[in-house]
Amino acid sequence: MTLAAIDTRYVYDFAEEPPGGRELLGGKGLGLSEMTRLGLPVPRGFTVTTDACRAYLEADVFPEGLDQELGAALQRLERATGTRFGSSDRPLLVSVRSGAAISMPGMMDSILDLGLSDAVAEGMSKATGNAQFAFDSYRRLIQMYGEVVEGIDADRFEEALSTLKRERGVTEDTELDGGDLRELVARYKRIYRDALGHEFPQDAGVQLRAAIEAVFRSWQNSRAQTYRRLNDIPEWIGTAVNVVQMVFGNAGPRSASGVAFSRDPASGSREPHGEFLVDAQGEDVVAGIRAPQPLEQLEEELPAAYAELRKAMNALERRYRDVQDVEFTIEQGALFILQTRSAKRTAAAALRAAIDMVDEGLISREEAVLRIDPSMLEHVLHPMIDARASVTVAATGVPASPGAAVGAVVFTADEAVRRSAEEPVILVRFDTTPDDIHGLAAAQGVLTAHGGMASHAAVVARGMGKPCVAGCDALQIDEATGTCTLGSFIVHEGDQITIDGSAGRAILGAASLVVPDSNPDLDTVLSWADTFRTLGVRANADTPADAERARAFGAEGIGLVRTEHMFFGDERLPVVQEMILAEDEVARRAALDRLLPFQQADFEGIFDVMRGLPVTIRLLDPPLHEFLPSEGEATSERMKDRIRSLRETNPMLGTRGCRLGLQWPEIYEMQLRAIARAAIAVADRTGKPPRVEIMHPLVAYAEELHRLHDLTERVMNEEAPGLAHLCGTMIELPRAALRAADIAAYADFFSFGTNDLTQTALGMSRDDAEGKFLTSYLNLGVVGHDPFATLDQNGVGELVELGTSRGRSVKPELEVGICGEHGGDPASIGFCHHAGLDYVSCSPFRVPVARLAAAQAALAERGTKYEVAGG
Amino acid sequence: MTLAAIDTRYVYDFAEEPPGGRELLGGKGLGLSEMTRLGLPVPRGFTVTTDACRAYLEADVFPEGLDQELGAALQRLERATGTRFGSSDRPLLVSVRSGAAISMPGMMDSILDLGLSDAVAEGMSKATGNAQFAFDSYRRLIQMYGEVVEGIDADRFEEALSTLKRERGVTEDTELDGGDLRELVARYKRIYRDALGHEFPQDAGVQLRAAIEAVFRSWQNSRAQTYRRLNDIPEWIGTAVNVVQMVFGNAGPRSASGVAFSRDPASGSREPHGEFLVDAQGEDVVAGIRAPQPLEQLEEELPAAYAELRKAMNALERRYRDVQDVEFTIEQGALFILQTRSAKRTAAAALRAAIDMVDEGLISREEAVLRIDPSMLEHVLHPMIDARASVTVAATGVPASPGAAVGAVVFTADEAVRRSAEEPVILVRFDTTPDDIHGLAAAQGVLTAHGGMASHAAVVARGMGKPCVAGCDALQIDEATGTCTLGSFIVHEGDQITIDGSAGRAILGAASLVVPDSNPDLDTVLSWADTFRTLGVRANADTPADAERARAFGAEGIGLVRTEHMFFGDERLPVVQEMILAEDEVARRAALDRLLPFQQADFEGIFDVMRGLPVTIRLLDPPLHEFLPSEGEATSERMKDRIRSLRETNPMLGTRGCRLGLQWPEIYEMQLRAIARAAIAVADRTGKPPRVEIMHPLVAYAEELHRLHDLTERVMNEEAPGLAHLCGTMIELPRAALRAADIAAYADFFSFGTNDLTQTALGMSRDDAEGKFLTSYLNLGVVGHDPFATLDQNGVGELVELGTSRGRSVKPELEVGICGEHGGDPASIGFCHHAGLDYVSCSPFRVPVARLAAAQAALAERGTKYEVAGG
Repeated sequence: MTLAAIDTRYVYDFAEEPPGGRELLGGKGLGLSEMTRLGLPVPRGFTVTTDACRAYLEADVFPEGLDQELGAALQRLERATGTRFGSSDRPLLVSVRSGAAISMPGMMDSILDLGLSDAVAEGMSKATGNAQFAFDSYRRLIQMYGEVVEGIDADRFEEALSTLKRERGVTEDTELDGGDLRELVARYKRIYRDALGHEFPQDAGVQLRAAIEAVFRSWQNSRAQTYRRLNDIPEWIGTAVNVVQMVFGNAGPRSASGVAFSRDPASGSREPHGEFLVDAQGEDVVAGIRAPQPLEQLEEELPAAYAELRKAMNALERRYRDVQDVEFTIEQGALFILQTRSAKRTAAAALRAAIDMVDEGLISREEAVLRIDPSMLEHVLHPMIDARASVTVAATGVPASPGAAVGAVVFTADEAVRRSAEEPVILVRFDTTPDDIHGLAAAQGVLTAHGGMASHAAVVARGMGKPCVAGCDALQIDEATGTCTLGSFIVHEGDQITIDGSAGRAILGAASLVVPDSNPDLDTVLSWADTFRTLGVRANADTPADAERARAFGAEGIGLVRTEHMFFGDERLPVVQEMILAEDEVARRAALDRLLPFQQADFEGIFDVMRGLPVTIRLLDPPLHEFLPSEGEATSERMKDRIRSLRETNPMLGTRGCRLGLQWPEIYEMQLRAIARAAIAVADRTGKPPRVEIMHPLVAYAEELHRLHDLTERVMNEEAPGLAHLCGTMIELPRAALRAADIAAYADFFSFGTNDLTQTALGMSRDDAEGKFLTSYLNLGVVGHDPFATLDQNGVGELVELGTSRGRSVKPELEVGICGEHGGDPASIGFCHHAGLDYVSCSPFRVPVARLAAAQAALAERGTKYEVAGG
Repeated sequence: MTLAAIDTRYVYDFAEEPPGGRELLGGKGLGLSEMTRLGLPVPRGFTVTTDACRAYLEADVFPEGLDQELGAALQRLERATGTRFGSSDRPLLVSVRSGAAISMPGMMDSILDLGLSDAVAEGMSKATGNAQFAFDSYRRLIQMYGEVVEGIDADRFEEALSTLKRERGVTEDTELDGGDLRELVARYKRIYRDALGHEFPQDAGVQLRAAIEAVFRSWQNSRAQTYRRLNDIPEWIGTAVNVVQMVFGNAGPRSASGVAFSRDPASGSREPHGEFLVDAQGEDVVAGIRAPQPLEQLEEELPAAYAELRKAMNALERRYRDVQDVEFTIEQGALFILQTRSAKRTAAAALRAAIDMVDEGLISREEAVLRIDPSMLEHVLHPMIDARASVTVAATGVPASPGAAVGAVVFTADEAVRRSAEEPVILVRFDTTPDDIHGLAAAQGVLTAHGGMASHAAVVARGMGKPCVAGCDALQIDEATGTCTLGSFIVHEGDQITIDGSAGRAILGAASLVVPDSNPDLDTVLSWADTFRTLGVRANADTPADAERARAFGAEGIGLVRTEHMFFGDERLPVVQEMILAEDEVARRAALDRLLPFQQADFEGIFDVMRGLPVTIRLLDPPLHEFLPSEGEATSERMKDRIRSLRETNPMLGTRGCRLGLQWPEIYEMQLRAIARAAIAVADRTGKPPRVEIMHPLVAYAEELHRLHDLTERVMNEEAPGLAHLCGTMIELPRAALRAADIAAYADFFSFGTNDLTQTALGMSRDDAEGKFLTSYLNLGVVGHDPFATLDQNGVGELVELGTSRGRSVKPELEVGICGEHGGDPASIGFCHHAGLDYVSCSPFRVPVARLAAAQAALAERGTKYEVAGG
């Protein structure tokens, strides 16, 4: 590298064709270069390449030739702008901005106004007649340079500023006049000298060189390193540095600063939107010092600049084939585009603009599909709090099921049912149990003090598509007085509250909600997505209603029916308990015989809805104690004994899943009979047999599945001989993934249960991690993301890949899916596509997300790129 | 195979040199062949090879040529014995015995007396003058043949026998005379005909052919298949069949049957031992119909046969280089050796005999080391119940800590202390907590109703080397009345009981114990073992007393100091609780400062004992709620709140290990300071700095260890700059094993925590598995062994191998050990040796086991074989 560096060029003007792209110039540098070469009005300047950064970091000095190149580039810039760097007459001021190939918040951003000195500030003050502007710029330079380049504590400058304001009897920075700011500059320079033992450099060249070095070094500060580690950004790539001529939107009435969107970011309609301030700098627009004017008025006030802006936005849309968000400055009537990037927009706008741009021939359908952020679809599927509304957040919790809801507070499921006849209600509980199902069904949403994403309330709410905020520590309920405290507020039964399940917020009063209409644009984009994706999308559904919803959202089957949900309900639970309390197999079978018709009816309902599509049914999974009340509520000594004997230290790792089925085969036998009879009944009724897939949970040993496979085939053969069906297993324990070749011998399919696989591979109980140490890990930056939300690809992902390849090594036709919650997470879906899975299964409301993410993964693999503008 | 089979020989006489060994002839066939060729008096006969079995199982008919070979072999046998198969005059009778290369209990064993028919039985009755003998043999043949070859229900024969005895008014089989048995034969033949529709075959050739086929088929019965699956025996190897001339020890006063050991199986002394019965068959010796005579008397009664027997045993010892257990029959003064095998013996005898045989030049030291079963060493380290004593087992539980103890029942720790001043006591509790430590220390052993191998009582008892029976379901304690029920017995406080922690038995009264002396033979064999092994052996020890014991047993370091054990005790626990209840970091640090001197003193004590040897200290691991009382016992509202907020659904997967250390770094900081100060103090005092290894538990992400490594180095550098030490981590989560390459970047060593790695990889909470579904799995044969006792090599083992190889791929010098309980299990130790680990660490009492097992693994790898005689 040192040898190669000798004839490497390190500096490229924005106006020239560079020999590399983003990796050489960084994102920001590439954007400035491209805009310049498109003929757009961009401030002049040049980029110091990432090569230079790497060479500097290796040798700790500027590489040979860089000083000369910088000097030459500055001269070209002076010639082109008719200014001189460091001169008090027509001075050239520049900013220095970092910009890596991948946007990196941990790094130094920019230093503005380099080139100012005592003499230059005086000259500028005179030339512009605006001492306030000149000395405010200068004092900002000293502060920024002092902090960033020399590491002086920011507080020392802030203190000096406060002192001066106190002395002048003013409260706002802007109330300081030119004289005050000249005094402030003097004080800042003293601080600088006291801290470092030398004066603030008056030589512009020294300033520039030191600023560039500071950007290079900022690549290695610990915040940046942590960010890279967490985001898998390579350490060696380095950053580029952009040196950009300063332009001023505050140079009089024919100057202005503003931001503009090439299309409406709210609706996606073709009209440009934005706002601007006359005689102001960009920061002023952001800071809201004066109320900005809507963009339309720019056409009246500065028509030539406006026309040029529209032309520029059209050119940028054509170049980047996406809606653009542009920062501009008008200096004395002349437009400068400072930056462009793909515009943030609402989901509805994203969909509309993408479809329009396909119609306009600007982008292909592939690009349209790549353009939409799958995680935004939530916004067009669920009600959301109006982003413009101001709300009082009383407490926060785990965002356990997305969407927002408003209602009257109720504290019991029964009251939820009663009051919901009159008005919408929010169920507020310490936690919920299967006994609260009717209340959850009646309420608009649920707020709990306990539990997290995996809690009963959360799981049920997600299935119902209702918002849920769980694990709200600051919630304390006093049922006796009919009140609860939410943080520092007291809320009475019947009071209105709003919950925001997307952000995990509990809000006082009725917030204004945006309720999405049905969105034909979504259907259009998803129908395109379906033509690109190769990964199947199924839904997790436990009832015919869930199944209907899944089909409506485009699911191609049910990937997970949790049969235990059929064990609850007033008619059933007592029979289930009787089964659990049975003294022997005969009594147990008698109870099971009475449960069979219920299960059969449930399965028939689902088969009816899903006719022709596969339905994967998981046999009973949870430990039996989940069906019994707490010891205090036991209704008999026998029940009390049984509760005690079934109690577990770590229920997640206890007698559940196939461990139940092997110890008490009559339970699985009943379920298998119910499945078989339901299949026969539906086949007889409709002439079309359902596509049944029977799934055994929590297998660790091939021998477990061997025996359960034998049981399955025996019962299916007794009840429904000749009925085509698959028998397979969840892969949800590390051992199962490792021993997948043995297990595949007895399996027609695998379904990765990545919830439990994550819990076991990481040794993290979800209930005990989220809102506790995992939250602390996220805050400390120990982990970059919640492994229960987005698959831990490095760890759990390797188990998924191993399990898939080992399983298929002995059975190439093995069907492989995933039915954990990761099945609805875009990043995880991309992983599943690349791992070669056949399908993902997720909650019905995530099916559109999954269809889109699966298409994007397929397109990415085909090399269809979605280029992001700017940096 | 079918082609090759054409010129394959399928039958080999015992007397000829076979072209293959065990894999061709099976274990039993090889033994008979070898003994014959050694010139020992063995009944004549021949072996049908495993090739024949495989060919039969493939084609479902005898392979071509087998019938002819069988005929020829029978003729040779007839010629050599002067008898004829199927003839009523000098009939040849044979037994057919199965024998695979690996002994397999699931398979058919033998059919005796083939060759008998109506005519032959009559002839034999006449020739011997013993109708009872002839017809009893015949009826046994019909029954065995009917059951094994034709699958007739055994009950039908047993019923006929019972009926006849009732009719004759007798209770014992032996009271039936010749006439009765002739009648029984007639009834048996009717049963046979009724069941099958044809007569019992009178043709000896037909009988023999069918018996051989039945042995072949028994290879595929489901019991045999399950056994093979569980023991990793290949399905394809098949079994051999041995056809052996019958000899009769009941042929008069110069005939006898007996068993003999070539050395004393109790003490190992050089005198042969054994017993015999004159005029009796082998079964009679086993059945104990008459009291057998000691072997010495054979010398007087049949001196020639006795001399030949001693000669034969000497020859067998020379051939098999091990103590032999021989079955013999003397027919009319002629000795026949029927079988020989390595003798079962006490641990003391095994040690003595091995050392003697080295002295005699019979075996090498390597062989002597291979000869000792490591799991037997327990018997020379702990008191055991005298095997000859008859005991009343009142209840059983988990064998949680080996050895046996007798004492008076006490129900509280305080009472244990009081009463133990007068007499030995057994502590009987529902379960134990750290509050009971003084009671455990005072008692001879402990019996609990709750918990298993991982329970507090079990872990503490193992550490103290005391017996423990845990999880005894049939124990119910009524402290109020000072009684408990043990199964169907009521036991009062003060009553004597015995517990057998090796077998998990609670026994009424004071059983007679065998208390081992210190055993110099053990030291000799272990000193030999140490010269062969390459795997290091460390001990898990938490106190100076543990460490002393570990050194005495030969540990080469401490592989695991569990620092949490130092958080209990009257002086400490209140301070620990204060730390947990602290409102902020300042208060927490204040409490920690008061704990520091305690921890420092603990570490100093251990460093003093282990001077010069490595000490691996694990920082705090258990969740904090383990240090708080139950909610009901909380002494303040603050404590109650904290107990609630620390409560966990699955504590095993919760806020523990390094998750504590990252959330509250001040806890680990205190521990690190205590370690550093202790090390400095010991170095100053002794001139020799201890070898400190600091271990961080429960790491899942490299970033966790990165931060803890930084914390460790910072504190060590502050407190003990320049002190050499290692900083490493437990690998006890599947993700850690998979990401070992990343983690190794921050680790000087790995220590596999295979307890937790097993719990997570298999998704099994040990507390909830043992005595529950895992016991059911073992009973059902779903798993072949308890994965918490013997490492699951296929699953958890792969993680150990992956973790080791990935860790060393980036850091070849990485030190790798194991500190789970598997570190004391012989099979697991063998695995650790082959996986290339540097050391195992186990409880002090298992150190001798580990030293021996490690040597055996090393010798096995070098190809030193320990051949087992016979089959």
